[in-house]
Amino acid sequence: MSPNPRAANSPEQAVIDRVAEVADLVTIALDRLLPRGEGPEAKLTEAMRYAALGPGKRLRPFFALEAGRLLDADEGAVLRAACALECIHAYSLVHDDLPCMDDDDVRRGRPTVHRQYDEATAVLAGDALQSAAFEIVLDEDTHDDAEIRAELALRLARASGALGMAGGQMIDLLGVRDDLGGVARMQRLKTGALFSHAFEIPIIIARAREAQRNALMGFADDIGLAYQIVDDLLDVEGSAEEMGKAAGGKDAALGKTNFVTLLGVEQARHRVAHLADQARDRLAVFGPDAENLKASVDFVLNRRS
Amino acid sequence: MSPNPRAANSPEQAVIDRVAEVADLVTIALDRLLPRGEGPEAKLTEAMRYAALGPGKRLRPFFALEAGRLLDADEGAVLRAACALECIHAYSLVHDDLPCMDDDDVRRGRPTVHRQYDEATAVLAGDALQSAAFEIVLDEDTHDDAEIRAELALRLARASGALGMAGGQMIDLLGVRDDLGGVARMQRLKTGALFSHAFEIPIIIARAREAQRNALMGFADDIGLAYQIVDDLLDVEGSAEEMGKAAGGKDAALGKTNFVTLLGVEQARHRVAHLADQARDRLAVFGPDAENLKASVDFVLNRRS
Repeated sequence: MSPNPRAANSPEQAVIDRVAEVADLVTIALDRLLPRGEGPEAKLTEAMRYAALGPGKRLRPFFALEAGRLLDADEGAVLRAACALECIHAYSLVHDDLPCMDDDDVRRGRPTVHRQYDEATAVLAGDALQSAAFEIVLDEDTHDDAEIRAELALRLARASGALGMAGGQMIDLLGVRDDLGGVARMQRLKTGALFSHAFEIPIIIARAREAQRNALMGFADDIGLAYQIVDDLLDVEGSAEEMGKAAGGKDAALGKTNFVTLLGVEQARHRVAHLADQARDRLAVFGPDAENLKASVDFVLNRRS
Repeated sequence: MSPNPRAANSPEQAVIDRVAEVADLVTIALDRLLPRGEGPEAKLTEAMRYAALGPGKRLRPFFALEAGRLLDADEGAVLRAACALECIHAYSLVHDDLPCMDDDDVRRGRPTVHRQYDEATAVLAGDALQSAAFEIVLDEDTHDDAEIRAELALRLARASGALGMAGGQMIDLLGVRDDLGGVARMQRLKTGALFSHAFEIPIIIARAREAQRNALMGFADDIGLAYQIVDDLLDVEGSAEEMGKAAGGKDAALGKTNFVTLLGVEQARHRVAHLADQARDRLAVFGPDAENLKASVDFVLNRRS
């Protein structure tokens, strides 16, 4: 038993430091990459910046960059593609928070975009963040090879669209899922698709071998699913203060099923632990190089918000 | 004086036939290209289809294909890229019609998407149509050359984003434009950017020469601007019946300036005629091959809806 499990140089501390470092890298890069309007459309570009540059864990970029290190992928290219992914994530939050969707007033401790600005601006800011994602990833500065730029953008579009994130959000809104299979499919689309894309980015850029690709995509599936179960556990257990948004079993109050309403708290926790073990095991193909990514699993799943 | 200016084989009739032919081609292609959900997300894919497959003039694809003929661009590639452009156009209409934007109940004689379905579905359908645009244009079936696919998608993203269509819509919503320069800039972003992209498509695919490119992009600017002035004339003159939506000087009623409120009806008509002449003159570089495109100018600008 270590007296201080987060001592300097411990694997846990290294993950914490790296997550913070990546978050800074992404915010600085996005600040440079996002457009600035010169006319009255500046209201729109300000709202986009408010949405994309606010506090955020930048977990997807963290995974893209960590997997990129494992694969020796060009870090500048991975960072730009991860910024594009983060624009898609940011737009989805802006639209999910709208009154006609989840109707949230607060996100990460700040007013949501439609509360800070107005609904029309929030709709447009989300729309323009989606366009910005493709502008960023398709720019020649991302990679010299057009094959790689086009493949990154195609995969991002698929992960975002009707058979990816947007489709998952539709299923979530409809609330039609009365068994684990339905909840799992909703998760795979709504949050899993973008999680997986974080790993696709370095796989495409490094032209990873099949075995590397399979290991990382399996890892992505496990972590994405475990992350969602933790989210559902936080929905039940979390307080409004910790989440920075309304919480306290919101899904249950809305009559929505989720992993915790279906499995119960104990079974859900057991499932998370099993997925975490399975995810770590998948990285065996990389040998000791994967220690950082393995160490990130607990950090990601032990989150309190 | 011809007794029947639209006789068979007249240039005017050829344009009418070709516009109808392109509209069919585009609708058939989009029906094949748009996703179909297999689970509960089918509600989303149905709403996307409702928005994109309904009646429409398909004017942007018409210009893309006609300019493509002039440049000997691969027609299959132009059609797919034009379908992507049409998805962006369709998504912009779905979001523009939302209650928090223009709040329209009827579009082209049918209930708008949020009236036919609901607001949340309309937001998501617009979002997913934008993703679908990039999926379509970036697919290898569009063109063998990844340079061309990446360039088409990059230009489409720029035309759609904060410094293109979405930025123009923001300016339109703010209503901040008290002179012709402001109205012209709003138009250039809101409708001009996608009009121009229709011509960029064949220019990119055919790798057009500089002189051809300049001629077509100038033509696009003139026609895009003239088209918007005609729209403003119809806003003043049109009836709800002809437009298939609420009309009768809607801009003026909202206190918004447009080309007609600033120029007056006569000056606005004069400007349209001047732009039409200028647009036709630009096509001199193509010689007699450009007769069809020249003949399309009057057709497009003499529209009643």
